[in-house]
Amino acid sequence: MRIALAQMNPIVGDIAGNARMAREFIAQARRQGADLVVFPELTIIGYPPKDLLLKPQFIDDSLRTMQTLASEIDGITAMIGCVVRNDQPIGRPLFNAAAIIGDHRIQSLHFKTLLPTYDVFDESRYFEPAPPPRRGKLTQIAGVPVGVSICEDLWNDQSIIQRRLYREDPIAELITAGTRLLLNCSASPFVAGKQEYRLRLFAAQARRAGVPLIVVNQVGGNDELVFDGDSVAFDANGNVIARAKSFEEDLLVVDLDERSTTTAASSIAADELEQIHRALILGLRDYVRKCGFNTVVLGLSGGIDSALTAALAVEALGKERVTGVALPSRFSSEHSLADARQLAENLGIAFHVVPIADVHDCFERTLAPAFAGREPDVTEENLQARIRGAVLMAFSNKFNHLLLTTGNKSEIAVGYCTLYGDMAGGLAVISDVPKTMVYQLCERINARAGRDIIPRSSITKPPSAELRPNQTDQDSLPPYDVLDAILYRYVEEEKGAARIIAEGFDPPTVMRVIKLIDRSEYKRRQAAPGLKVTSRAFGFGRRMPIAQNYIQDLPKHGEPSPVLE
Amino acid sequence: MRIALAQMNPIVGDIAGNARMAREFIAQARRQGADLVVFPELTIIGYPPKDLLLKPQFIDDSLRTMQTLASEIDGITAMIGCVVRNDQPIGRPLFNAAAIIGDHRIQSLHFKTLLPTYDVFDESRYFEPAPPPRRGKLTQIAGVPVGVSICEDLWNDQSIIQRRLYREDPIAELITAGTRLLLNCSASPFVAGKQEYRLRLFAAQARRAGVPLIVVNQVGGNDELVFDGDSVAFDANGNVIARAKSFEEDLLVVDLDERSTTTAASSIAADELEQIHRALILGLRDYVRKCGFNTVVLGLSGGIDSALTAALAVEALGKERVTGVALPSRFSSEHSLADARQLAENLGIAFHVVPIADVHDCFERTLAPAFAGREPDVTEENLQARIRGAVLMAFSNKFNHLLLTTGNKSEIAVGYCTLYGDMAGGLAVISDVPKTMVYQLCERINARAGRDIIPRSSITKPPSAELRPNQTDQDSLPPYDVLDAILYRYVEEEKGAARIIAEGFDPPTVMRVIKLIDRSEYKRRQAAPGLKVTSRAFGFGRRMPIAQNYIQDLPKHGEPSPVLE
Repeated sequence: MRIALAQMNPIVGDIAGNARMAREFIAQARRQGADLVVFPELTIIGYPPKDLLLKPQFIDDSLRTMQTLASEIDGITAMIGCVVRNDQPIGRPLFNAAAIIGDHRIQSLHFKTLLPTYDVFDESRYFEPAPPPRRGKLTQIAGVPVGVSICEDLWNDQSIIQRRLYREDPIAELITAGTRLLLNCSASPFVAGKQEYRLRLFAAQARRAGVPLIVVNQVGGNDELVFDGDSVAFDANGNVIARAKSFEEDLLVVDLDERSTTTAASSIAADELEQIHRALILGLRDYVRKCGFNTVVLGLSGGIDSALTAALAVEALGKERVTGVALPSRFSSEHSLADARQLAENLGIAFHVVPIADVHDCFERTLAPAFAGREPDVTEENLQARIRGAVLMAFSNKFNHLLLTTGNKSEIAVGYCTLYGDMAGGLAVISDVPKTMVYQLCERINARAGRDIIPRSSITKPPSAELRPNQTDQDSLPPYDVLDAILYRYVEEEKGAARIIAEGFDPPTVMRVIKLIDRSEYKRRQAAPGLKVTSRAFGFGRRMPIAQNYIQDLPKHGEPSPVLE
Repeated sequence: MRIALAQMNPIVGDIAGNARMAREFIAQARRQGADLVVFPELTIIGYPPKDLLLKPQFIDDSLRTMQTLASEIDGITAMIGCVVRNDQPIGRPLFNAAAIIGDHRIQSLHFKTLLPTYDVFDESRYFEPAPPPRRGKLTQIAGVPVGVSICEDLWNDQSIIQRRLYREDPIAELITAGTRLLLNCSASPFVAGKQEYRLRLFAAQARRAGVPLIVVNQVGGNDELVFDGDSVAFDANGNVIARAKSFEEDLLVVDLDERSTTTAASSIAADELEQIHRALILGLRDYVRKCGFNTVVLGLSGGIDSALTAALAVEALGKERVTGVALPSRFSSEHSLADARQLAENLGIAFHVVPIADVHDCFERTLAPAFAGREPDVTEENLQARIRGAVLMAFSNKFNHLLLTTGNKSEIAVGYCTLYGDMAGGLAVISDVPKTMVYQLCERINARAGRDIIPRSSITKPPSAELRPNQTDQDSLPPYDVLDAILYRYVEEEKGAARIIAEGFDPPTVMRVIKLIDRSEYKRRQAAPGLKVTSRAFGFGRRMPIAQNYIQDLPKHGEPSPVLE
């Protein structure tokens, strides 16, 4: 059987546009002689649609378009992700489904059984799982009994998954039913290291079933999430026989009988840093494009975070569509402005200098009567950041540029950033990139260019917010390698203070960092959406209360967990 | 049996503090001769703990405190909400539980079966439902077989609920097991009209069971949510025999044998507007307090939204803890400043005037080179709002006041507000109050005071942002009664354009309002948390994509919903 993997980049909610895109993939697959074309999860709706799914008319519109699409298809079989209404009086009103379509009609409908409800996923909010009579049903395609599954349905292999969330095992049911081929339509967002994990998991499922497995994943950025594609076909022994591109649309045609390997090997990212780099570019490009913007603006401080963000923006959009603005204050050093200018020249982007000292002075005069008798403090530092935010938003409003924020994960974690100041903007490009990785990415960009696109002095000088004389980040924070190590354990691994200290970190530093992280939740609640590249990003996948007062006990390490009985 | 309903106001995550609070309620209940004291859901953790539940040490800390608490209790039985770890290798790692405690030990543990996962609720993210062997088990209290349930477990009565989400019916299982008394610990947040609905639902459950029912609800504001208390006891016929206070802590003791009615009838809100008024006060007070602030600041424009917010702040915190700042610009009218001053005088709050014209001029001079040749547009309007935001945040930083934002639901819906400008602040007090209800609340406040605390001219003048000469809201928006009516249908009722138009609204107006609502999602994503008082508030309970492009079909009204088959 000849199968086309239609790795599509939909716009969420754009039912008509996504259906047009699907039609083009179908036509192309047919031209290439495919018997079957497989699409990602929720094909014409786009993933994740979130609460659009609660709108009855949205569901109607998607169903009507599916009907039209189905009526058009002939000469090929298509597997298209869609929603189906639950006609039972009990349970959630929708199923997450895949339709097998051919000969101008829907030949079978298959419902998702395992509904991810963790991290960024909310599927139990919307969907009813496939009821037992609906499960383990095969569909005949070109005379082959085929087992259909949807994304998470594959993610329950005991040999791979440490703690099983689900009692159900839909793949086992398909195996029992005698499937000779497994198909899966997915919308599995990128996380560093996940491509390798997915390959291991999928290969294990193919081996368990002893049949070929085709997984088609969505590609493209949708708000915080970057879908990396990397659709893949396995033979019955779990060997990869074809692998689609990562981080781009692709139509990969694979011939199961001939085992023709058409892997676009060159497109598969070599290492984790490369993957993250490509994810950031795709996420940035798609957010700008899908929000209807053409151009971006950002503040250039001369520091490394804004330099990285600018370089990524140029890679994502082209230099003609990026504007940098330097906003020197009375505390900015000469070299900062020089570094900002040098960066803009290296990147070839438009560059403005807007000194903020006059506005700053004017603000201080205006506030003087109300602040009489008070010493300068963090108020005045924040004021400068907010003047910069207002100037950059004026550029955004006046020229219809999307404003990019440049804060990294380390500073957003501990709140070393100003609400409505440097946090102002439509997209936080590197807010899930810890400072130590910011350096790595900059070195990579320079190394690949064979020259210092990002000025060497931006990399080597001590990081500083330059909001008071001679300030450096490390006046307020532990060294970034220590901070990032604690951050990783506390945020990504969810370890408590006692466990982190037991790993050898300085107890007061650990307690201080944790307190800073917890107390900055109110800032993050108002942060711009940020591109997720780690297993635990701030944002939609990490939902913390603000008005809370959890103070950790510090039990002796190794003390057993208490049990109520 | 003498039962104490311990309607407690916990701080989320403050395990030690909440346990102390619980101890005091227990001591008081014992002094009043209660046999049993019943607490709200997740008593010592506080509801909703959100992703604190993902921290293993947080769970350990809560379990250890529960063990200590249990070891102390004698002379009374206590029902306390807690989490319990799932020791099975499959499924989510926690149960949402209630512990029956007496004689220094935990006598039984009961797990929640129905896990709300909609609107603001995410319980399937954290909890495993009670497995079948755990369900329908009674516990003996003072010789009576008692059925224990937790919040949502009660919310599945077919005679009341239109569409059943759940197959399970834990109350039916307790009835079958022969319960003679039903207990329920709840954390059910306030929504306008919900108190009446709850009473009907609970009464139906008591009647169905033919036994008395005790429901203890949490009270207090936690971020966006306001828990209204209103704990209640029913006899076996579904008659209310006692009802605790709304919107305050309470310890209500009820004697089931004697049917003594100790209803604090005077404290029950008379009507929906009164309920909303009290919810806003409680939510504001608790957010300020639980975030560790003592005082608030807000901008006073002379308009009705800031006037209402200021009046609510004075009711919540007292006039000594509220500061108003008027920020006249070159476009502010004389009467606006006069109205702001009058309001501050009426309320007796501190009042500052900080003219922003100089800073505005200075900004324009600073931006002139970059903006040369461009006409003034919304950029300059937003700039004024952002200058105000920066001044108010300077007051917040300098004096450690929490900044309140004053936007109403109507303007936040359609994006008639400025990011980092009037949207800047820590709490959006009236962001779930539509403009038409803002007027109603102001009239109520004045009527109750017997004088115009909120100046009459603030109520009668046409609403204006005063960001350009002679501007009024209705230059850009439909009249607020029309806007609010469409808003209600689109946001709260999730009706599509076709249905709203079929109800008689002007089609271009409907399409325009819907487009404004959809396109303002990026602003709301960065909005301050806002107090929820309607069934569908912007915020945590409404999760929309930003980079989306759903354009509604306009099918003929009455066209049947399509079905895939």
